[in-house]
Amino acid sequence: MPTPTGVGTEELRRANLRAILQTVHTRGPTTRAVLTRELGLNRSTIGALTFELQSLGLVTEQTSAVGGRSGRPSHLVVPCPDNVVVAVDVGVDRVAVALVGLGGDVLDRRDRGHQRGEHDVAHVVESVAQMIEDCLAAVPSKRCLGIGVAVPGAVRTGDGLVRFAPNLGWVEEPFTELLANRLGRPVSTGNDANLGVLAEHIRGVAVGYSDVAYLSASVGIGGGFLVGGVPLTGARGYAGEVGHMQVDSLGPECRCGSVGCWEMKVGENVLLRRAGRLPGGGPPAIAEVIASARDGEARAAAAVDEVAEWCGVGIRAIVNLFNPEIVVLGGVLSQVWSAASDRVDEALSRSTLISPRNDVEIRSARLEDDSPLIGAAELAFAPVLEHPQMVPQAV
Amino acid sequence: MPTPTGVGTEELRRANLRAILQTVHTRGPTTRAVLTRELGLNRSTIGALTFELQSLGLVTEQTSAVGGRSGRPSHLVVPCPDNVVVAVDVGVDRVAVALVGLGGDVLDRRDRGHQRGEHDVAHVVESVAQMIEDCLAAVPSKRCLGIGVAVPGAVRTGDGLVRFAPNLGWVEEPFTELLANRLGRPVSTGNDANLGVLAEHIRGVAVGYSDVAYLSASVGIGGGFLVGGVPLTGARGYAGEVGHMQVDSLGPECRCGSVGCWEMKVGENVLLRRAGRLPGGGPPAIAEVIASARDGEARAAAAVDEVAEWCGVGIRAIVNLFNPEIVVLGGVLSQVWSAASDRVDEALSRSTLISPRNDVEIRSARLEDDSPLIGAAELAFAPVLEHPQMVPQAV
Repeated sequence: MPTPTGVGTEELRRANLRAILQTVHTRGPTTRAVLTRELGLNRSTIGALTFELQSLGLVTEQTSAVGGRSGRPSHLVVPCPDNVVVAVDVGVDRVAVALVGLGGDVLDRRDRGHQRGEHDVAHVVESVAQMIEDCLAAVPSKRCLGIGVAVPGAVRTGDGLVRFAPNLGWVEEPFTELLANRLGRPVSTGNDANLGVLAEHIRGVAVGYSDVAYLSASVGIGGGFLVGGVPLTGARGYAGEVGHMQVDSLGPECRCGSVGCWEMKVGENVLLRRAGRLPGGGPPAIAEVIASARDGEARAAAAVDEVAEWCGVGIRAIVNLFNPEIVVLGGVLSQVWSAASDRVDEALSRSTLISPRNDVEIRSARLEDDSPLIGAAELAFAPVLEHPQMVPQAV
Repeated sequence: MPTPTGVGTEELRRANLRAILQTVHTRGPTTRAVLTRELGLNRSTIGALTFELQSLGLVTEQTSAVGGRSGRPSHLVVPCPDNVVVAVDVGVDRVAVALVGLGGDVLDRRDRGHQRGEHDVAHVVESVAQMIEDCLAAVPSKRCLGIGVAVPGAVRTGDGLVRFAPNLGWVEEPFTELLANRLGRPVSTGNDANLGVLAEHIRGVAVGYSDVAYLSASVGIGGGFLVGGVPLTGARGYAGEVGHMQVDSLGPECRCGSVGCWEMKVGENVLLRRAGRLPGGGPPAIAEVIASARDGEARAAAAVDEVAEWCGVGIRAIVNLFNPEIVVLGGVLSQVWSAASDRVDEALSRSTLISPRNDVEIRSARLEDDSPLIGAAELAFAPVLEHPQMVPQAV
């Protein structure tokens, strides 16, 4: 039961301001008529609130020639793309940086390998900072609303401390603070899978779904969840760590200290080794194994089969725990699902699924490997979408 | 991101009415002064709203002799115990029925074994209905606000269909509809662990916590979760099924069709068999094994040790998935935790816990085996707490 709270009229006005901005950011240009109908507010309220958003430089209004039912021209409320955020995805192999406009368009995009292949936090901070500065220097007239970063690890709510990012070798690294100090700007950091589910919910296959499980595997497995439309963070921001569920007491040993963790059964390198390949090739190497399996190579086929089986075991646990409407798969999970959905489904359905199988959709992520990057943009937009009146006025 | 919604002033008034009633129901008698301060409303608004709640027969006002800071006597808003609900807990061995007053006091309580030990749904419905009628017949002047039932199974949101209650042998049983038709009254049904976490949150060890995992084991294991203060239900109400996470590919076989499910490692009968006892003795038999282990019986001690180890494995998965502030244990999990918390903790901490161990409290349920029953009462109160103005006016 939520704590009872009194609500005042100023809060009401802010809620409505927020509702309009969120709507045009998510859906794109929207007529006043549609806003009036969908938000259940009257025309003059909508008019006053869109005027306020215009004054804040967050939207513009265009008069559409296409009339509504009344035949009158309708005012189109348009998110103003002079407002941008910088989104960053810190991967194990590379850093991706994107300039994203209010409304969600990617205006610029840069990728760079880690300097000398290193994950030393000071190097990563410097490299990311330079990429962000380059990106912003190219658009001096834009207003930067924020910087959002996706990291493959557990990130503490509040200060963005990276508690544990095993594939970067980071433990308790104050990454967010270091980057913010280096840039002289606030930075928000989130777990890549938590941001992935957000992106798929706002702009991907999970639009319109409230209960979503996003599971993405590369070397490890990340999990991000929406529960009743709300991101699952847990008490400190560490929720969603699906990779270390013990599924097999026989092993193998995991670098976490336990045995038989789920990510030791379905990670990229597990599949590659089982197929007799060298580890480390990433998604293209996985694609090669899958193609070889299809062409009849027995060892590749057995590897895909085995990993598909373990995909089913883990997804079953997640479905029974969360009863999601949709499971969105990324990385090697998506590749295996696309290649061997029958096999995954067989493992999933072999034992009791509490929810009927037909009630759960399983889909590959629409934004593919960019779900965390797009989610990082949404993380950066979030404060302005929550409090439009607090938008920074300086460019 | 929650769907943007416009908020009107009538909705605001209802939210404040709700906030007052929820506060006095949860905390008991509360002064107007405290309500004014905590809900952030002015004195005249509180006065008008409590007057409305009095008209609805939901609260009474008493003038307290103890003055506030001003020295003036303060009006004490008191939940009116003429409003009751009937709470039911359908267990595997027995049915418990309680009459609970607004404010949470248990006014009457009855337990009865299943008729002829049977779980046939028609028999259970008839037995429960008679117990409810007996309970209400004893208090003819009370106003019954609702009937809430806890069931050890997956319950569909909306119609309360029991999709799967393996320990009762129920599959897709329209239990709620049958009971409502038999009584001629609406009935709300929920999963026992989902109601258990609610009760522990409102009146137990989890008061004040927003992220709570409640894990209770008897023959099977039930899981109930609060996520950011909100009950986790999943898309259809089936979330929280923790018992069938695969933890060991070696087995044993589970009645669900899979192998090595968590509940095959920590259920009551698992512990009893490992200790060389006959299954079926329930909590007293578990207590005997624990006492024998303490007295030095090697086989009992080994059984407790082994189950404690598997408790740790499962709790670790839950902590990594949900990052709760507190894990509340019921049934055999609570018994094993009380007897062997060091052993559970050792297993829990052997491998990586994403959240620092100190950030997670582990506690036995305060309401003990009654958490689901008290939660069923809260389920029955919920519609009136949500919409006080819709309280039934007839007694």
